[in-house]
Amino acid sequence: MAKQDRAIRTRRVILSAAAQVFEQRGFQAATISEILKTAGVTKGALYFHFPSKEDLAQGVLYEQDQQDVVQDQACKVQQLIDTVMLHAYRLQTDPMVRAGVRLSLDQQAHGLDRSGPFVRWSQIVRRLLSEAQEQGELLPQVVVTESADVTVGAFAGVQAMSQAMCEHNDLLVRVSAMLRHLLPSMAHPSVLTSVELGADRGEVVARMAAESGAQQPVEVS
Amino acid sequence: MAKQDRAIRTRRVILSAAAQVFEQRGFQAATISEILKTAGVTKGALYFHFPSKEDLAQGVLYEQDQQDVVQDQACKVQQLIDTVMLHAYRLQTDPMVRAGVRLSLDQQAHGLDRSGPFVRWSQIVRRLLSEAQEQGELLPQVVVTESADVTVGAFAGVQAMSQAMCEHNDLLVRVSAMLRHLLPSMAHPSVLTSVELGADRGEVVARMAAESGAQQPVEVS
Repeated sequence: MAKQDRAIRTRRVILSAAAQVFEQRGFQAATISEILKTAGVTKGALYFHFPSKEDLAQGVLYEQDQQDVVQDQACKVQQLIDTVMLHAYRLQTDPMVRAGVRLSLDQQAHGLDRSGPFVRWSQIVRRLLSEAQEQGELLPQVVVTESADVTVGAFAGVQAMSQAMCEHNDLLVRVSAMLRHLLPSMAHPSVLTSVELGADRGEVVARMAAESGAQQPVEVS
Repeated sequence: MAKQDRAIRTRRVILSAAAQVFEQRGFQAATISEILKTAGVTKGALYFHFPSKEDLAQGVLYEQDQQDVVQDQACKVQQLIDTVMLHAYRLQTDPMVRAGVRLSLDQQAHGLDRSGPFVRWSQIVRRLLSEAQEQGELLPQVVVTESADVTVGAFAGVQAMSQAMCEHNDLLVRVSAMLRHLLPSMAHPSVLTSVELGADRGEVVARMAAESGAQQPVEVS
Protein backbone atom coordinates (compact mmCIF):
# COMPACT_ATOMS: atom_id res chain seq x y z
CA MET A 1 0.00 0.00 0.00
CA ALA A 2 1.37 3.43 -0.90
CA LYS A 3 2.11 5.79 1.98
CA GLN A 4 -0.72 8.11 1.01
CA ASP A 5 -3.26 5.30 0.76
CA ARG A 6 -2.25 4.15 4.21
CA ALA A 7 -2.75 7.64 5.63
CA ILE A 8 -6.22 7.87 4.06
CA ARG A 9 -7.06 4.44 5.45
CA THR A 10 -5.85 5.36 8.94
CA ARG A 11 -7.81 8.60 8.86
CA ARG A 12 -10.95 6.66 7.95
CA VAL A 13 -10.40 4.08 10.72
CA ILE A 14 -10.02 6.90 13.27
CA LEU A 15 -13.17 8.68 12.05
CA SER A 16 -15.19 5.44 12.17
CA ALA A 17 -14.05 4.90 15.76
CA ALA A 18 -14.84 8.51 16.67
CA ALA A 19 -18.30 8.17 15.10
CA GLN A 20 -18.95 5.06 17.17
CA VAL A 21 -17.82 6.65 20.46
CA PHE A 22 -19.62 9.98 19.85
CA GLU A 23 -22.82 8.13 19.01
CA GLN A 24 -22.66 6.06 22.20
CA ARG A 25 -21.46 8.72 24.62
CA GLY A 26 -22.30 12.10 23.11
CA PHE A 27 -19.67 14.75 22.51
CA GLN A 28 -19.15 15.84 26.09
CA ALA A 29 -18.65 12.42 27.69
CA ALA A 30 -16.57 10.98 24.84
CA THR A 31 -12.81 10.79 25.49
CA ILE A 32 -9.90 10.66 23.09
CA SER A 33 -8.48 7.63 24.91
CA GLU A 34 -11.70 5.70 24.23
CA ILE A 35 -11.56 6.67 20.57
CA LEU A 36 -7.88 5.58 20.50
CA LYS A 37 -8.79 2.21 21.99
CA THR A 38 -11.66 1.66 19.55
CA ALA A 39 -9.57 2.69 16.54
CA GLY A 40 -6.55 0.59 17.51
CA VAL A 41 -4.07 3.13 16.12
CA THR A 42 -1.13 4.85 17.81
CA LYS A 43 -1.56 8.08 19.72
CA GLY A 44 0.82 9.75 17.27
CA ALA A 45 -1.29 8.73 14.27
CA LEU A 46 -4.46 10.04 15.87
CA TYR A 47 -2.97 13.40 16.85
CA PHE A 48 -1.37 13.73 13.41
CA HIS A 49 -4.81 13.62 11.76
CA PHE A 50 -6.91 15.19 14.53
CA PRO A 51 -5.17 17.40 17.13
CA SER A 52 -8.24 17.62 19.42
CA LYS A 53 -11.65 16.15 20.26
CA GLU A 54 -13.25 19.10 18.45
CA ASP A 55 -11.30 18.20 15.32
CA LEU A 56 -12.52 14.61 15.56
CA ALA A 57 -16.12 15.81 15.92
CA GLN A 58 -15.76 18.24 13.01
CA GLY A 59 -14.36 15.36 10.96
CA VAL A 60 -17.45 13.24 11.69
CA LEU A 61 -19.78 16.20 11.09
CA TYR A 62 -18.06 16.85 7.77
CA GLU A 63 -18.20 13.23 6.58
CA GLN A 64 -21.97 12.88 6.99
CA ASP A 65 -22.91 14.73 3.81
CA GLN A 66 -19.88 13.90 1.68
CA GLN A 67 -21.17 10.66 0.20
CA ASP A 68 -24.57 12.00 -0.77
CA VAL A 69 -23.60 12.73 -4.35
CA VAL A 70 -26.47 12.06 -6.68
CA GLN A 71 -25.97 11.97 -10.43
CA ASP A 72 -27.10 14.98 -12.45
CA GLN A 73 -30.66 14.70 -13.62
CA ALA A 74 -32.80 16.58 -16.12
CA CYS A 75 -35.44 17.31 -13.47
CA LYS A 76 -33.81 19.22 -10.62
CA VAL A 77 -36.74 18.66 -8.24
CA GLN A 78 -36.20 14.91 -8.72
CA GLN A 79 -32.49 15.41 -8.03
CA LEU A 80 -33.37 17.21 -4.80
CA ILE A 81 -35.75 14.40 -3.78
CA ASP A 82 -33.06 11.82 -4.56
CA THR A 83 -30.47 13.70 -2.51
CA VAL A 84 -32.78 13.88 0.51
CA MET A 85 -34.00 10.27 0.23
CA LEU A 86 -30.44 8.98 -0.25
CA HIS A 87 -29.40 10.83 2.90
CA ALA A 88 -32.29 9.24 4.80
CA TYR A 89 -31.28 5.82 3.50
CA ARG A 90 -27.66 6.39 4.54
CA LEU A 91 -28.81 7.56 7.94
CA GLN A 92 -30.46 4.17 8.40
CA THR A 93 -27.54 2.14 7.10
CA ASP A 94 -24.26 4.06 7.65
CA PRO A 95 -22.97 4.60 11.22
CA MET A 96 -20.83 7.58 10.12
CA VAL A 97 -23.86 9.45 8.76
CA ARG A 98 -25.86 8.59 11.89
CA ALA A 99 -23.11 9.84 14.20
CA GLY A 100 -22.79 13.06 12.21
CA VAL A 101 -26.51 13.78 12.34
CA ARG A 102 -26.60 13.01 16.07
CA LEU A 103 -23.64 15.28 16.78
CA SER A 104 -25.27 18.13 14.91
CA LEU A 105 -28.29 17.81 17.23
CA ASP A 106 -26.22 17.27 20.41
CA GLN A 107 -27.22 20.23 22.55
CA GLN A 108 -24.75 19.38 25.26
CA ALA A 109 -21.85 19.69 22.84
CA HIS A 110 -20.79 23.04 24.27
CA GLY A 111 -17.84 24.55 22.42
CA LEU A 112 -18.57 22.53 19.28
CA ASP A 113 -19.84 24.55 16.33
CA ARG A 114 -22.79 22.42 15.22
CA SER A 115 -24.04 24.83 12.57
CA GLY A 116 -21.75 23.30 9.90
CA PRO A 117 -24.02 20.50 8.67
CA PHE A 118 -27.06 22.80 8.68
CA VAL A 119 -25.13 25.39 6.64
CA ARG A 120 -23.71 22.81 4.22
CA TRP A 121 -27.06 21.09 3.75
CA SER A 122 -28.69 24.45 3.14
CA GLN A 123 -26.12 25.18 0.45
CA ILE A 124 -26.73 21.82 -1.24
CA VAL A 125 -30.51 22.30 -1.23
CA ARG A 126 -30.22 25.96 -2.30
CA ARG A 127 -28.11 25.02 -5.29
CA LEU A 128 -30.57 22.36 -6.42
CA LEU A 129 -33.57 24.65 -5.88
CA SER A 130 -31.84 27.47 -7.79
CA GLU A 131 -31.24 25.14 -10.72
CA ALA A 132 -34.86 24.02 -10.55
CA GLN A 133 -35.94 27.66 -10.51
CA GLU A 134 -33.83 28.49 -13.57
CA GLN A 135 -35.47 25.62 -15.42
CA GLY A 136 -38.93 26.89 -14.52
CA GLU A 137 -39.75 23.94 -12.24
CA LEU A 138 -40.69 26.08 -9.21
CA LEU A 139 -43.70 28.22 -8.37
CA PRO A 140 -43.17 31.95 -8.90
CA GLN A 141 -43.36 32.99 -5.23
CA VAL A 142 -40.63 30.60 -4.03
CA VAL A 143 -37.73 32.20 -2.14
CA VAL A 144 -34.97 29.64 -2.58
CA THR A 145 -33.04 30.39 0.65
CA GLU A 146 -36.19 30.14 2.75
CA SER A 147 -37.48 26.93 1.14
CA ALA A 148 -34.03 25.36 1.49
CA ASP A 149 -33.84 26.17 5.21
CA VAL A 150 -37.34 24.85 5.87
CA THR A 151 -36.47 21.59 4.07
CA VAL A 152 -33.21 21.11 5.99
CA GLY A 153 -34.78 21.97 9.36
CA ALA A 154 -37.80 19.75 8.75
CA PHE A 155 -35.57 16.83 7.80
CA ALA A 156 -33.53 17.18 11.01
CA GLY A 157 -36.69 17.02 13.13
CA VAL A 158 -38.46 14.27 11.22
CA GLN A 159 -35.40 12.03 11.66
CA ALA A 160 -35.15 12.95 15.37
CA MET A 161 -38.82 12.05 15.83
CA SER A 162 -38.34 8.75 14.00
CA GLN A 163 -35.34 8.03 16.21
CA ALA A 164 -37.17 8.85 19.44
CA MET A 165 -40.26 6.83 18.44
CA CYS A 166 -38.71 3.70 16.91
CA GLU A 167 -34.94 3.99 16.40
CA HIS A 168 -35.32 5.15 12.78
CA ASN A 169 -37.32 2.11 11.70
CA ASP A 170 -39.96 4.23 9.94
CA LEU A 171 -37.54 6.93 8.78
CA LEU A 172 -37.97 6.43 5.03
CA VAL A 173 -41.77 6.52 5.23
CA ARG A 174 -41.63 9.70 7.33
CA VAL A 175 -39.18 11.50 5.05
CA SER A 176 -41.22 10.56 2.01
CA ALA A 177 -44.33 12.02 3.72
CA MET A 178 -42.37 15.16 4.61
CA LEU A 179 -41.42 15.71 0.96
CA ARG A 180 -45.03 15.15 -0.15
CA HIS A 181 -46.04 17.90 2.28
CA LEU A 182 -43.31 20.41 1.41
CA LEU A 183 -43.00 20.11 -2.36
CA PRO A 184 -46.51 21.34 -3.33
CA SER A 185 -45.58 24.79 -2.01
CA MET A 186 -42.35 24.83 -4.04
CA ALA A 187 -42.75 22.97 -7.34
CA HIS A 188 -45.21 23.31 -10.23
CA PRO A 189 -48.00 20.71 -10.14
CA SER A 190 -46.90 19.48 -13.58
CA VAL A 191 -43.44 18.70 -12.15
CA LEU A 192 -44.90 16.90 -9.13
CA THR A 193 -46.97 14.51 -11.22
CA SER A 194 -43.82 13.07 -12.77
CA VAL A 195 -41.45 12.73 -9.80
CA GLU A 196 -40.76 9.61 -7.77
CA LEU A 197 -40.68 10.10 -4.02
CA GLY A 198 -41.77 6.80 -2.51
CA ALA A 199 -40.16 5.47 0.66
CA ASP A 200 -37.93 3.10 -1.37
CA ARG A 201 -36.41 5.90 -3.45
CA GLY A 202 -33.26 6.24 -1.31
CA GLU A 203 -32.33 2.60 -1.78
CA VAL A 204 -32.97 2.81 -5.53
CA VAL A 205 -30.71 5.86 -5.79
CA ALA A 206 -27.98 4.21 -3.67
CA ARG A 207 -28.03 1.17 -5.95
CA MET A 208 -27.92 3.31 -9.12
CA ALA A 209 -24.98 5.29 -7.73
CA ALA A 210 -23.08 2.13 -6.75
CA GLU A 211 -23.67 0.56 -10.19
CA SER A 212 -22.53 3.65 -12.04
CA GLY A 213 -19.36 3.70 -9.93
CA ALA A 214 -19.92 7.39 -9.32
CA GLN A 215 -19.85 6.75 -5.62
CA GLN A 216 -17.94 5.00 -2.90
CA PRO A 217 -19.80 1.95 -1.66
CA VAL A 218 -21.46 2.51 1.71
CA GLU A 219 -19.16 1.43 4.53
CA VAL A 220 -20.82 -0.36 7.37
CA SER A 221 -18.38 -0.69 10.25
CA MET B 1 -50.91 29.68 52.19
CA ALA B 2 -52.97 26.51 52.31
CA LYS B 3 -51.07 23.25 52.53
CA GLN B 4 -52.08 22.22 49.00
CA ASP B 5 -51.03 25.56 47.50
CA ARG B 6 -47.68 25.20 49.19
CA ALA B 7 -47.22 21.72 47.73
CA ILE B 8 -48.05 22.99 44.25
CA ARG B 9 -45.61 25.86 44.68
CA THR B 10 -42.83 23.56 45.90
CA ARG B 11 -43.42 21.21 42.97
CA ARG B 12 -43.10 24.13 40.58
CA VAL B 13 -39.91 25.40 42.22
CA ILE B 14 -38.37 21.94 41.92
CA LEU B 15 -39.38 21.60 38.26
CA SER B 16 -37.96 25.03 37.42
CA ALA B 17 -34.67 24.07 39.05
CA ALA B 18 -34.65 20.73 37.23
CA ALA B 19 -35.34 22.49 33.91
CA GLN B 20 -32.40 24.81 34.51
CA VAL B 21 -29.99 22.00 35.40
CA PHE B 22 -31.12 19.68 32.57
CA GLU B 23 -30.75 22.51 30.07
CA GLN B 24 -27.22 23.31 31.21
CA ARG B 25 -25.91 19.79 31.72
CA GLY B 26 -28.10 17.47 29.69
CA PHE B 27 -29.91 14.54 31.23
CA GLN B 28 -26.95 12.23 31.74
CA ALA B 29 -24.61 14.69 33.47
CA ALA B 30 -27.31 16.32 35.63
CA THR B 31 -27.39 15.22 39.28
CA ILE B 32 -30.18 15.31 41.82
CA SER B 33 -27.92 17.07 44.33
CA GLU B 34 -27.38 19.93 41.87
CA ILE B 35 -31.13 20.21 41.31
CA LEU B 36 -31.62 20.18 45.10
CA LYS B 37 -29.10 23.00 45.52
CA THR B 38 -30.69 25.09 42.75
CA ALA B 39 -34.22 24.54 44.07
CA GLY B 40 -33.31 25.27 47.69
CA VAL B 41 -35.81 22.74 49.05
CA THR B 42 -35.29 19.83 51.40
CA LYS B 43 -34.29 16.41 50.14
CA GLY B 44 -37.53 15.05 51.58
CA ALA B 45 -39.66 17.53 49.63
CA LEU B 46 -37.88 16.70 46.40
CA TYR B 47 -38.18 12.93 46.81
CA PHE B 48 -41.83 13.29 47.83
CA HIS B 49 -42.65 14.90 44.48
CA PHE B 50 -40.08 13.16 42.28
CA PRO B 51 -38.59 9.86 43.46
CA SER B 52 -35.90 9.75 40.73
CA LYS B 53 -34.02 11.76 38.10
CA GLU B 54 -36.20 10.11 35.44
CA ASP B 55 -39.30 11.40 37.25
CA LEU B 56 -37.85 14.91 37.28
CA ALA B 57 -37.12 14.71 33.56
CA GLN B 58 -40.58 13.35 32.81
CA GLY B 59 -42.01 16.25 34.85
CA VAL B 60 -40.13 18.77 32.72
CA LEU B 61 -41.04 16.94 29.50
CA TYR B 62 -44.68 16.94 30.55
CA GLU B 63 -44.77 20.64 31.47
CA GLN B 64 -43.54 21.88 28.10
CA ASP B 65 -46.83 21.49 26.27
CA GLN B 66 -49.22 22.10 29.16
CA GLN B 67 -49.44 25.86 28.85
CA ASP B 68 -50.04 25.92 25.13
CA VAL B 69 -53.80 26.13 25.46
CA VAL B 70 -55.25 28.32 22.77
CA GLN B 71 -58.84 29.49 22.91
CA ASP B 72 -61.33 27.75 20.66
CA GLN B 73 -61.67 29.37 17.28
CA ALA B 74 -64.12 29.06 14.42
CA CYS B 75 -61.34 28.28 11.95
CA LYS B 76 -59.49 25.18 13.15
CA VAL B 77 -56.54 25.72 10.81
CA GLN B 78 -56.05 29.12 12.49
CA GLN B 79 -56.25 27.42 15.89
CA LEU B 80 -53.55 24.99 14.80
CA ILE B 81 -51.35 27.85 13.56
CA ASP B 82 -51.89 29.69 16.86
CA THR B 83 -50.99 26.60 18.90
CA VAL B 84 -47.75 26.10 16.96
CA MET B 85 -46.78 29.80 16.97
CA LEU B 86 -47.56 30.13 20.69
CA HIS B 87 -45.32 27.14 21.38
CA ALA B 88 -42.51 28.76 19.35
CA TYR B 89 -42.99 32.00 21.29
CA ARG B 90 -42.89 30.13 24.62
CA LEU B 91 -39.78 28.29 23.49
CA GLN B 92 -38.06 31.65 23.09
CA THR B 93 -39.32 33.09 26.38
CA ASP B 94 -39.99 30.27 28.88
CA PRO B 95 -37.04 28.25 30.27
CA MET B 96 -39.33 25.33 31.19
CA VAL B 97 -40.52 24.92 27.60
CA ARG B 98 -36.95 25.25 26.32
CA ALA B 99 -35.68 22.61 28.75
CA GLY B 100 -38.51 20.25 27.79
CA VAL B 101 -37.84 20.60 24.07
CA ARG B 102 -34.10 20.11 24.62
CA LEU B 103 -34.66 17.01 26.73
CA SER B 104 -36.89 15.50 24.08
CA LEU B 105 -34.01 15.86 21.59
CA ASP B 106 -31.28 14.73 24.02
CA GLN B 107 -29.90 11.66 22.30
CA GLN B 108 -27.60 10.83 25.17
CA ALA B 109 -30.54 10.54 27.57
CA HIS B 110 -30.33 6.76 27.65
CA GLY B 111 -33.05 5.19 29.75
CA LEU B 112 -35.32 8.22 29.39
CA ASP B 113 -38.39 7.70 27.22
CA ARG B 114 -38.25 10.81 25.04
CA SER B 115 -41.16 9.85 22.82
CA GLY B 116 -43.69 11.47 25.20
CA PRO B 117 -43.63 15.04 23.85
CA PHE B 118 -43.68 13.79 20.26
CA VAL B 119 -46.68 11.58 21.03
CA ARG B 120 -48.54 14.31 22.96
CA TRP B 121 -47.83 16.94 20.33
CA SER B 122 -49.00 14.55 17.63
CA GLN B 123 -52.24 14.04 19.54
CA ILE B 124 -52.80 17.80 19.90
CA VAL B 125 -52.17 18.42 16.20
CA ARG B 126 -54.24 15.37 15.17
CA ARG B 127 -57.22 16.60 17.16
CA LEU B 128 -57.07 20.07 15.60
CA LEU B 129 -56.61 18.66 12.09
CA SER B 130 -59.53 16.25 12.61
CA GLU B 131 -61.75 19.14 13.62
CA ALA B 132 -60.56 21.12 10.60
CA GLN B 133 -61.32 18.11 8.41
CA GLU B 134 -64.84 17.76 9.80
CA GLN B 135 -65.46 21.41 9.02
CA GLY B 136 -64.29 20.94 5.44
CA GLU B 137 -61.17 23.08 5.85
CA LEU B 138 -58.75 20.43 4.59
CA LEU B 139 -57.95 19.08 1.14
CA PRO B 140 -59.60 15.72 0.37
CA GLN B 141 -56.38 13.66 0.21
CA VAL B 142 -55.14 14.65 3.69
CA VAL B 143 -54.37 11.79 6.08
CA VAL B 144 -54.62 13.47 9.47
CA THR B 145 -52.18 11.22 11.36
CA GLU B 146 -49.51 11.63 8.69
CA SER B 147 -49.88 15.40 8.35
CA ALA B 148 -49.78 15.76 12.15
CA ASP B 149 -46.55 13.76 12.44
CA VAL B 150 -44.88 15.71 9.62
CA THR B 151 -45.82 18.99 11.33
CA VAL B 152 -44.54 17.91 14.74
CA GLY B 153 -41.30 16.47 13.32
CA ALA B 154 -40.68 19.52 11.14
CA PHE B 155 -41.18 21.84 14.11
CA ALA B 156 -38.66 19.92 16.22
CA GLY B 157 -36.00 20.24 13.52
CA VAL B 158 -36.68 23.84 12.56
CA GLN B 159 -36.24 24.87 16.19
CA ALA B 160 -33.07 22.75 16.50
CA MET B 161 -31.66 24.44 13.39
CA SER B 162 -32.56 27.89 14.74
CA GLN B 163 -30.87 27.01 18.02
CA ALA B 164 -27.68 25.71 16.34
CA MET B 165 -27.47 28.71 14.00
CA CYS B 166 -28.33 31.62 16.32
CA GLU B 167 -29.62 30.47 19.73
CA HIS B 168 -33.29 30.71 18.64
CA ASN B 169 -33.07 34.38 17.61
CA ASP B 170 -34.80 33.75 14.28
CA LEU B 171 -37.11 31.00 15.56
CA LEU B 172 -40.42 32.80 14.94
CA VAL B 173 -39.50 33.71 11.36
CA ARG B 174 -38.45 30.11 10.67
CA VAL B 175 -41.58 28.54 12.16
CA SER B 176 -43.78 30.95 10.23
CA ALA B 177 -41.97 29.96 7.01
CA MET B 178 -42.37 26.28 7.93
CA LEU B 179 -46.15 26.70 8.27
CA ARG B 180 -46.36 28.58 4.95
CA HIS B 181 -44.62 25.58 3.36
CA LEU B 182 -46.67 22.84 5.02
CA LEU B 183 -50.20 24.24 5.03
CA PRO B 184 -50.76 24.43 1.25
CA SER B 185 -50.66 20.63 1.12
CA MET B 186 -53.19 20.36 3.94
CA ALA B 187 -55.73 23.20 3.84
CA HIS B 188 -58.05 24.52 1.13
CA PRO B 189 -56.69 27.62 -0.65
CA SER B 190 -59.80 29.53 0.44
CA VAL B 191 -58.92 28.82 4.11
CA LEU B 192 -55.29 29.88 3.62
CA THR B 193 -56.19 33.30 2.24
CA SER B 194 -57.85 34.24 5.52
CA VAL B 195 -55.43 32.90 8.14
CA GLU B 196 -52.79 34.89 10.00
CA LEU B 197 -49.41 33.19 10.29
CA GLY B 198 -46.86 35.97 10.50
CA ALA B 199 -43.81 35.71 12.77
CA ASP B 200 -45.50 37.89 15.43
CA ARG B 201 -48.53 35.59 15.72
CA GLY B 202 -47.24 33.74 18.81
CA GLU B 203 -46.84 36.92 20.82
CA VAL B 204 -50.30 38.13 19.77
CA VAL B 205 -51.84 34.83 20.89
CA ALA B 206 -49.92 34.87 24.20
CA ARG B 207 -51.21 38.38 24.91
CA MET B 208 -54.81 37.46 24.00
CA ALA B 209 -54.64 34.41 26.26
CA ALA B 210 -53.21 36.41 29.17
CA GLU B 211 -55.89 39.09 28.79
CA SER B 212 -58.72 36.58 28.66
CA GLY B 213 -57.36 34.97 31.83
CA ALA B 214 -57.68 31.59 30.18
CA GLN B 215 -54.04 30.99 30.81
CA GLN B 216 -51.34 31.20 33.44
CA PRO B 217 -48.96 34.09 32.76
CA VAL B 218 -45.64 32.94 31.35
CA GLU B 219 -43.15 32.38 34.15
CA VAL B 220 -39.64 33.52 33.39
CA SER B 221 -37.29 32.28 36.07
